[in-house]
Amino acid sequence: MLFRQLFDQESSTFTYLIAEPFQRLAILVDPVLEQVNRDLKLLQELNLTLHSCLETHVHCDHVTGAARLRAVTDCQVIVPAGAEVFGADRFIEDGEMIILGNTWLEAMATPGHTDSHMAYQVESDRVLTGDALFIRGCGRTDFQGGNPGVLYDSVTQRLFTLPEEVLVYPGHDYGGQTTSTIGEEKRANPRFVGYEREKFITLMNGLGLAKPKKILEALPANTFCGIAA
Amino acid sequence: MLFRQLFDQESSTFTYLIAEPFQRLAILVDPVLEQVNRDLKLLQELNLTLHSCLETHVHCDHVTGAARLRAVTDCQVIVPAGAEVFGADRFIEDGEMIILGNTWLEAMATPGHTDSHMAYQVESDRVLTGDALFIRGCGRTDFQGGNPGVLYDSVTQRLFTLPEEVLVYPGHDYGGQTTSTIGEEKRANPRFVGYEREKFITLMNGLGLAKPKKILEALPANTFCGIAA
Repeated sequence: MLFRQLFDQESSTFTYLIAEPFQRLAILVDPVLEQVNRDLKLLQELNLTLHSCLETHVHCDHVTGAARLRAVTDCQVIVPAGAEVFGADRFIEDGEMIILGNTWLEAMATPGHTDSHMAYQVESDRVLTGDALFIRGCGRTDFQGGNPGVLYDSVTQRLFTLPEEVLVYPGHDYGGQTTSTIGEEKRANPRFVGYEREKFITLMNGLGLAKPKKILEALPANTFCGIAA
Repeated sequence: MLFRQLFDQESSTFTYLIAEPFQRLAILVDPVLEQVNRDLKLLQELNLTLHSCLETHVHCDHVTGAARLRAVTDCQVIVPAGAEVFGADRFIEDGEMIILGNTWLEAMATPGHTDSHMAYQVESDRVLTGDALFIRGCGRTDFQGGNPGVLYDSVTQRLFTLPEEVLVYPGHDYGGQTTSTIGEEKRANPRFVGYEREKFITLMNGLGLAKPKKILEALPANTFCGIAA
């Protein structure tokens, strides 16, 4: 398997390129509109055909590059079941897999940041946690059907039941970290260590964060896979 | 082996944490002064003892965190042989190794960006290329004993002789990439593909780059391992 972590500095978003080396089919998870040219160049340099763009959720801090990538490459756009998205090619359900040759991803319903969020396990040794679980943090829960109790359950009852050595690849990082492990987050994530469910809900409901700068642009665009066409 | 890539967004510098899991000894390669607290916290969370800070070269775009990390942890500071640095604990020569339990790094003299630059092979499957080789680029060669012909030789005759599947982990990236491979850089690095030595020298001598913003602060500080004490 070819696995690449890519970073958009403006929104601190990680995009992941996953490909299998024989048919040379690739998936881009959470591509960012402003990075589409970078991603297309990388696909070309690596001699990969884009099979699909896969979203962990409907983002509110950046516009997805999915529609533009589809316009250029004719790839599929795959979004979580239940997401309010028009024009997707496939809605993926909890437990469904995407199989490229001998490489596979499995969707794990992990709502709470949004109401239709999926993490994706990539083979047996890593998981893309989207905005459910960050390195020593988690996504906010104050809009788009966000619900702190539901997020707490997604993290503690789904993600934290993966083997401790599974590598965590988050949807964002704001402090310069790139990866972690499930064991490490169980032991050191300050949002979850020592927080019972009720305490976590109180913490999340009291964060008082400003709205994301791009929300008024990103949400409507992402409802249409980032528009394009 | 535990391997972590860390990023300083201001200077676009990658720091690498490498540790062996039994004695739990760690090395930080190219730590950044402003990120020392992040790095100390990570060491503590991972229950690691800092064995050493290792520099690929004397940086001119950021101040190293080595001296401050030594002041707190009593680690060694290891710098390339020939570097004009005062207060280092060890000068490492081409071909010398740092061995932590069953984890090892080997210094590869790769001058040209500066006159005393080392890349570090980390076990058999990855190489930290510092500022000799970036993903689809390379470091500049217009001061600190930089020499484009020497850099060309370092990249083409040292780094490019590693097996093609070896993962490249650079000292910086300015476009959101995090890793590559030797084979990929041989095929797609625009500084080297199709450039004979003389053409590369002409290219590098004609870049006309502005001086790094922090050079007047970074160079004197890094001559003393980043100062501290």
